This record gives sequence, C-alpha cells and structure tokens, in this order.
Amino acid sequence: MLQPDSLFSDRMADVPKSFIREILKTTVSPEVISFAGGLPNRELFPIQEVRQAAVGVLDAYGAEALQYATSEGLYELRQWISQRYRSQQQLDIHPDNIIITTGSQQGLDLIAKILINEGDSLGLEEPGYLGAIQAFALYRPSFRPVPLHFDGLDVQALARSLDRFQPKLFYTVPSFQNPSGISHSNANRDAVAEVFRNSCTLLIEDNPYGEIRFSGEQLRSYAARLPDRTVLLGSFSKIFVPGFRIGWIAAPDRLMEKLTVAKQAADLHTNYFAQRVLLQYLQTSSIDEHITRIRDVYARQKQAMTAAIAREFPASVRCSNPDGGMFLWAVLPDGIPAREVFDAAIKENVAFVPGDPFYVDGRAASTMRLNFSCVDEDGIAEGIARLGTILRTRIGE
Amino acid sequence: MLQPDSLFSDRMADVPKSFIREILKTTVSPEVISFAGGLPNRELFPIQEVRQAAVGVLDAYGAEALQYATSEGLYELRQWISQRYRSQQQLDIHPDNIIITTGSQQGLDLIAKILINEGDSLGLEEPGYLGAIQAFALYRPSFRPVPLHFDGLDVQALARSLDRFQPKLFYTVPSFQNPSGISHSNANRDAVAEVFRNSCTLLIEDNPYGEIRFSGEQLRSYAARLPDRTVLLGSFSKIFVPGFRIGWIAAPDRLMEKLTVAKQAADLHTNYFAQRVLLQYLQTSSIDEHITRIRDVYARQKQAMTAAIAREFPASVRCSNPDGGMFLWAVLPDGIPAREVFDAAIKENVAFVPGDPFYVDGRAASTMRLNFSCVDEDGIAEGIARLGTILRTRIGE
Repeated sequence: MLQPDSLFSDRMADVPKSFIREILKTTVSPEVISFAGGLPNRELFPIQEVRQAAVGVLDAYGAEALQYATSEGLYELRQWISQRYRSQQQLDIHPDNIIITTGSQQGLDLIAKILINEGDSLGLEEPGYLGAIQAFALYRPSFRPVPLHFDGLDVQALARSLDRFQPKLFYTVPSFQNPSGISHSNANRDAVAEVFRNSCTLLIEDNPYGEIRFSGEQLRSYAARLPDRTVLLGSFSKIFVPGFRIGWIAAPDRLMEKLTVAKQAADLHTNYFAQRVLLQYLQTSSIDEHITRIRDVYARQKQAMTAAIAREFPASVRCSNPDGGMFLWAVLPDGIPAREVFDAAIKENVAFVPGDPFYVDGRAASTMRLNFSCVDEDGIAEGIARLGTILRTRIGE
Repeated sequence: MLQPDSLFSDRMADVPKSFIREILKTTVSPEVISFAGGLPNRELFPIQEVRQAAVGVLDAYGAEALQYATSEGLYELRQWISQRYRSQQQLDIHPDNIIITTGSQQGLDLIAKILINEGDSLGLEEPGYLGAIQAFALYRPSFRPVPLHFDGLDVQALARSLDRFQPKLFYTVPSFQNPSGISHSNANRDAVAEVFRNSCTLLIEDNPYGEIRFSGEQLRSYAARLPDRTVLLGSFSKIFVPGFRIGWIAAPDRLMEKLTVAKQAADLHTNYFAQRVLLQYLQTSSIDEHITRIRDVYARQKQAMTAAIAREFPASVRCSNPDGGMFLWAVLPDGIPAREVFDAAIKENVAFVPGDPFYVDGRAASTMRLNFSCVDEDGIAEGIARLGTILRTRIGE
C-alpha cells in the first residue's frame, strides 16, 4: 500500500499555507469592512470593452484565436509590452526577450524553477510578497531576507547579505509593494544598484503596480541601472483584469531558452484567446484613459485612508503613505502582535491582514497590511475609526 | 560577474528539447502534406458558440467573470466534469476532488511537483507522451519505461519494473495514446490493474482523447478498477478548443491539499473568464453533438489513412489501427531509422514525426507518428502514397 509519510516530495514540506486565504474566509460577511483583500476594484473593470474585443477577435480571427499557439506568447502582444517599456520607462526590451506568462505568478515559478537548487541562497525584501514566498519555497532555497524601510531597502544589510551569502537571485517589488505600499526612492535605488553591481546576484524586479501612480516622482527601474542582470515581471491584472491571468517575464538573452522550455513544460502556452482579446483591447481602446480612472479612484481612497489614520490612529503607529498601488502599511509599537489587534477588529466587523505571513520566519508581527482599493471613502473612514478605537485601547494612548 | 556554468538549476540539465518544435518548423510550408502536427482540426472549432458564450457571460456576470477567483477553479465547471465522469464512465468523482488546471499539461507539472524527488523512480509506457516526459524531466526522476504493444502495456515487463523499482508513480495514456493511437484493451487493463493492485505505485491516467472514439468497444477507466490509487488528467482541448488551456486533475482525497497549494503557487488560478465561457457553452450548446461531428470527421480521415496504408506501405511495416484519437503508429522493420525516412519524405513534401523523442533514452527509433486529424482525405491518400514510395524503396519490397 501507499506509505502516507513518504508520499509527497520533500519540496512540499516548507511551503507556507496561505494564511491570507484563511483570513479572507473570516471576512466574507457583508457587514465586515474589509481592508484584508488584495483585489483590484471590480467597479473599474472595462466590461463593455472586453465584450467588444472578444467579439472582434472571433469575427476577425475565428478558429486561429482558439487553436494551440506558441509557448512564448502572441508576438504583437510582446511588441506592445516592449513599446510600453520604451514609452513609460525608457527601457529598451526586445519582444524576443519577453514571454507571456499565466499571470506574473507563473513568472515567479518559472524563474525559480530554472535557477534555484535546494539550499541556494535567495534574497528578498522583508516584509515580502507572499505569492513569491510561496512560489519560491517549493524550490527549497535558503531565504536571505533584507529589511525594507519606509524609503526602500536597508542598503547596509543588503551589502552584508550579498557579501556573505552571494544569493543566486534577489526578489523585490520596488514600486508600491505588496504588502507595504512602500517604494524604493530614487536615492535608495541608486545605492541598491551600486551594491548589486559588485555582486553575482540576479535581480528580479516585480512591478505589478508601477502604472498605478497617483502622486510623487517617477522612479527609474532597476532594469535601467542593471540591464544585464535584471529580470522584469509584469502583469495586466491591475491595469486591465486579473481573471485573464496574463502577465509576462522579460529577461536577458542568456535566460530565454531555459525559460521557454520551462514555460512549455508548465502549460504549453498561456490562454491564446485571452491574449488576442487583450491585444484587441489595447489596439481599440485607450488603456491610458482607463489607467487614469483607476488612479483617480485609488488616489481618493488612499487619501481617505491616510486622512482617517491621521485622525484616528495613535501617533505611535507609523504608517506608509504610498504614491500608488493598493496597500498601506502600519507598524505598531514594539511587542504588540497584530494578530491580537485582528482578533479584536473582527469582533467590530473590520478586517486587515496581520503582517505575519510576509516574513519568512513566520514571526508574530507587529505590522498590518491595509488595502484601500476595494472600500469606498465612507467605508474607509468608518473602518479606520473602528480600528483606531481598538488601537488606542490596546496601546493606551 | 555571473558565472554562466553555475547559472541554471540542476533540474534544467535533463530536459529534452522539443524535437517536435524543430520538426514542425520544417513543415510549415503550404506545399507540405503534414502528418507531423498534433493539433485538433480547427475547421471543427465552435466559433459562433464561443462568441455567444463570451457575450452571454459578460452580460450575465459582468465584473465577476473578470476578477480573481479560487485556485481550485469554478465549482459549477467541476460539477459538470464530475457528472460527465458519471454519465460517460460510471465513475464516482466528487467535484471537491477536481482542480481546474491550465491545460492538462499543468496537471503533469503539479503531480510531479508534489510527488517526485530527484532520483525517484517514475514509470511510463514507451513510446510515451512527449509533453509528459518534458514536464516530468524537470523533477529529475529515474524514468522506468515499460514497452507499449499494439494491445496495451507489456504486463510481464510492468510487473518486473514495479517489483524492482517500486516507482512512486506510473504515467499512461491508455486510450488512443499520443503518439501511437494505441489503446490498452479491456483484457490488458484487467491484467495491468492486477499488477498495480499489489504495488505501492500511484497510476496517472491521462485521457485527453477518450471521448473521440469512432469504433470499437468501450474501455473501462483504470480509476474504476483502482479508485484509491488513480489520478485522472483531463482536457477540453480536443473536444472544445485548445487555445483556452483548460484541463483538470482528479485525485484521491489525500493529494488534494498539496495539489491546491502547488496550483496556487503555479499561477493562482486558471483564466476565470475562460472557465465561465466554457461553462456557458456546456450549458447552452450540445457538446455531445459537437463531439459527434469531430468523431465523424476524424473517423473518415483515419479510414482514409488505413486504406491508403494498406494500398501503399510495404507489408513489413506494421501499423496501429486506432479506434479514436488523432494518431496512428507505424513500426518499420528493425534497423531502419525513421529519421532517414523523414529526410527522404521532406524532399517529397510530406512530413511525420520520427519516433525518437517518444523514448526516454533518445534512441534512433524505427517508428513513425502519423497524425490524421488535420489533413483531408485527398491529402491523406496523396501523402501516404508518397510515403509508401519512399518506404518501398528503402525497405526494398
């Protein structure tokens, strides 16, 4: 008979359970004001444009749009991404260096798959993106976290970590990060890039939120500073729709063959009809106008959240003030576990994600992720007021 | 600087290059009659029905159809698959035991990911499905091939292999296999199941072509014989459209949690809009009528191929006579490398896939895969006539 103990591969032993999934289960009730989600605001999805694009694709391409296709993805879509890199970030990325992936989540899986042996050092910022921690954990690296501060990576700690561990790759979301909303400042990027320049480490720059900027200075990509050693991950989930699962990976030449092999083994190719519909949308609608609408709504909601926090939270709770994206980060005075605050909050029908799962050591964190993309301004004011009451009571200010 | 030699993970060392891709590149010219492809016939795609379903989904569900969704997949679609198992194969598979995957290719990746450690024995039939060999190779198993004969697996060789290597899993496509078109007969399945019953091995039964039967007796699934140790892989690519990349994995309870974790890490979930469109199609159109159309066309084309082979091929070339699917297998007299035949054939503008990539040892095979789903009856007669001339010359009959 099958031996239960030996059934699974070793790589399944270290994968963190999705704590957020468990949290979200407790927050589905309609009375709960939830800052726990991580979804784009569905009110902004371009439903009619998707409808027109789907019909347009089937009328124009018919069976071709429904057949098997190349593993690298639709070439015109890769061209569009290449042109977008040029127009938005002055980056010179050839379409041949882009593979369409089934969400940027797949990009995380592919890059770890082709690069990471068990025990290899893998650097990442902390707090870090949970989806990346989960994807990477399957390949059993030794995680080498570097603290993320309100203006970016801890440069000294980064230099020490690269020097000591020589990680094969380092993962970062430098703009409007999930979970923190923090961006690396341009000055921080300069210093960070200088540290990487003297290392053997490949930098994975994940940028799902970069286009959702509503204030502050433009930030230059690490790929502009370190073109030969930066792998870019991108996504249409936050600027178009997430349900299509279309992202991409852009990498230096020497990685492309192995990435293509891994992509083909993973799912042959990304949904081709969806790629065609997306391209049709990009060619016939204005995604810039659409992004402007998203920015305006998220900007107002973020503004409502920071204003409410200023009124309601004790001064000892420090918060990020993001210039874009969907999240804001609150740091509680030392020793106050965010899980305790969560337990009190859920009794008052307000939810957030305690910081615990965003640290690879699974610590009892004193940090909170607050999502502002999916709650309207009145809900934000009310929810933050309830949280403020709980925090004032707990902290005693 | 980066060290090129140490750049990639060890798992990338053993992945076979897609030989078929290279072959297909040589056969894109319109003058070539190609039996080398592996595509469903695009003339049969239900374009108008997809169009109606896409519009219907957006009108009925709007933003919901475009948002992030659960990793396991759309529950009603999993219910449909569960009911289909019951109605078509008298199998009792609960929807909770089904995960929607990004094509059945992803199912191959997930099952190997959660089960296979480097060096673990993994059994498979030989010739075997190339996509599976590629997906599995990334996890560096020791492949333990078992010969596939015209009526199914070599039972003696299977018993010896299970006894000697105790493989963690064994992979098979028992109905209308790719590449051979061979099915395990019911008698063969009885004997094979008996061998597995006395082993610790999990059976992976991949069945993308099972519904495309145009003659012969119904074959009972291994899952009916070995419900506790069979993992089923399925696909809508051959009965609906491949471009949607929708497949599924159906597994015993004890595998579901790890499969779900691996699925979430791989791409969060499969394109949700496409799942909704497919479900809408299944609810508003008759897929049974559609499958009947596919069967009729493929049956005629297979008939044309077997008739032409009887006329044109030397008697010493033995061929399978599939009751379904898309492929037919030709076994040349010993010592004649199919690659030589391929080189001669391509000069005459006819193509097929030499058997080499379907064996894990990469041998110079004396076997040929002939696809009949994408060439019409006249093209089949002409292409087989050209191949017959080449074979008669080479074999000297």
